Amino acid sequence: MQRPSVLGVTYLALGEPDYPVRLQAIDDPPPLIAVRGNRAALALPAVGIVGSRNASAAGAKFAQMLARDLADAGFAVVSGLARGIDAVAHRAALTTGTIAVLAGGHDRIYPPEHTELAQALLANGCAISEMPLGWEPRAHDFPRRNRLISGLALGVVVVEAAKRSGSLITARFALEQGREVFAVPGSPLDPRAEGTNSLLKQGATPVTEAADVISVLEPILGRPAAPVYQPPEPSGLANRADSEEAAARVMALLGPTPVTIDDLIQLSGVGAAVVRNSKSPDGWRGSAVGASPWPVETHFSSI
Amino acid sequence: MQRPSVLGVTYLALGEPDYPVRLQAIDDPPPLIAVRGNRAALALPAVGIVGSRNASAAGAKFAQMLARDLADAGFAVVSGLARGIDAVAHRAALTTGTIAVLAGGHDRIYPPEHTELAQALLANGCAISEMPLGWEPRAHDFPRRNRLISGLALGVVVVEAAKRSGSLITARFALEQGREVFAVPGSPLDPRAEGTNSLLKQGATPVTEAADVISVLEPILGRPAAPVYQPPEPSGLANRADSEEAAARVMALLGPTPVTIDDLIQLSGVGAAVVRNSKSPDGWRGSAVGASPWPVETHFSSI
Repeated sequence: MQRPSVLGVTYLALGEPDYPVRLQAIDDPPPLIAVRGNRAALALPAVGIVGSRNASAAGAKFAQMLARDLADAGFAVVSGLARGIDAVAHRAALTTGTIAVLAGGHDRIYPPEHTELAQALLANGCAISEMPLGWEPRAHDFPRRNRLISGLALGVVVVEAAKRSGSLITARFALEQGREVFAVPGSPLDPRAEGTNSLLKQGATPVTEAADVISVLEPILGRPAAPVYQPPEPSGLANRADSEEAAARVMALLGPTPVTIDDLIQLSGVGAAVVRNSKSPDGWRGSAVGASPWPVETHFSSI
Repeated sequence: MQRPSVLGVTYLALGEPDYPVRLQAIDDPPPLIAVRGNRAALALPAVGIVGSRNASAAGAKFAQMLARDLADAGFAVVSGLARGIDAVAHRAALTTGTIAVLAGGHDRIYPPEHTELAQALLANGCAISEMPLGWEPRAHDFPRRNRLISGLALGVVVVEAAKRSGSLITARFALEQGREVFAVPGSPLDPRAEGTNSLLKQGATPVTEAADVISVLEPILGRPAAPVYQPPEPSGLANRADSEEAAARVMALLGPTPVTIDDLIQLSGVGAAVVRNSKSPDGWRGSAVGASPWPVETHFSSI
């Protein structure tokens, strides 16, 4: 599964356990994605934040606030590493895990001036690409790439967008993929708000603060993005017999349909420690702010 | 019905034929309204345009465009003669008929600097008040007055509004009265957009151009606000026997529920001239731009 390569790129094939669950659900998931950085970020619940390359100061400021607040709430911020809104969103979520989806190969960062940003986000987040190393991104690779931004995410927020812009393509993919579409309102006299206002007219959810996004996504997620701290289990549960019985209960709950660790804890009535010991999660590293010590998107199943 | 008084004020009592049809339908219609100016404006399909007293330049510019375009489309613009958005909306619709709803008596124009505007709108539009002459408007007369702005209108557009503003009270009245609520989007960083964005989150229709309002209101109206010119009927229809039979068909369609002249024409399959001759509409004076020569809000019924 972990196949280190040049630049520290590893690959995830469709069907492999770590392949992002939501991306797997789209119509045309990439058969193979090349990943650099902290793959655990791919297991966080994710929100796309996209927008104009020539963002206004207000748009950039808002994107920054929004990305930071969503990151603090436990979401990975997914974007396209482009100039403007994309870059602002990635930067605001550097410490908690942000995901950059590239249109070219990992060694062909576009725009070139974001090479440093792409490197910086690898510590807690990751960059992914469906293109081979050496692939120079062409114009039509960008819209194609956009389906992965929405595909990784529970929903996409369009912060600023002119009438015909790439961000609207991402919003269209989100709709087609059954993901939530959010749009930030703007003055009708501001051409950078034409696209977002038009999304609002089509039924997108208006966003003026992170809470507007969280209140829509948490019910889909079925729980807060960043679960509250679970205190250690009472010592009695360390008893081996109890523990074996509990593990059997957990195993009985597993079937072909993936289930989250939180659901398992709730459904089994068994302590979190026992559920966790039923399978050892792979190397997720905790992030700075309000994150769980466990992969919040880890899915357990019997197959 | 026409009782000329000081300042040329006439009165309309609830139940009188010229009492505005939609206002009559609200829970607490004023038993008597004092009207100055061209009463025929009260028979036009109306849209409320309201907003901040301390409007931004962009907000004022947008209100102007919107009011002019809605006026050109055949709508009367209703507002509260306040500073800011209200005044801009009235001014943009001076030539086609705009309705100012006052919080005090007709001889107590508020704010005083709008006395000239109040006078100017009387030529094609009118000012109305449920308060007696000499009534100095107090703080709580303004929210009370707002129910008449929405009550006269098919819908209300809120252009700019801070968090707790009078315009939001008008929007609330509109909702309670079953009228459409429209809101102009604005940047989340602009405090003057807090109220309108909050309305959007509550389900108000986003407005960036007049067409957004017209496309919602025309289906309610059942026809364009300004019907296209109807050519004279072919001479055969002037035949008296045909005409009597047609008139009978029109009469048969009438019942206790009011119906518009356009609906009658469509439902009876009878020429417009015959339907019109079935009852003579009272003195509606045509307005400058794109208006029908017939009272567009005239309702026919058998009682």
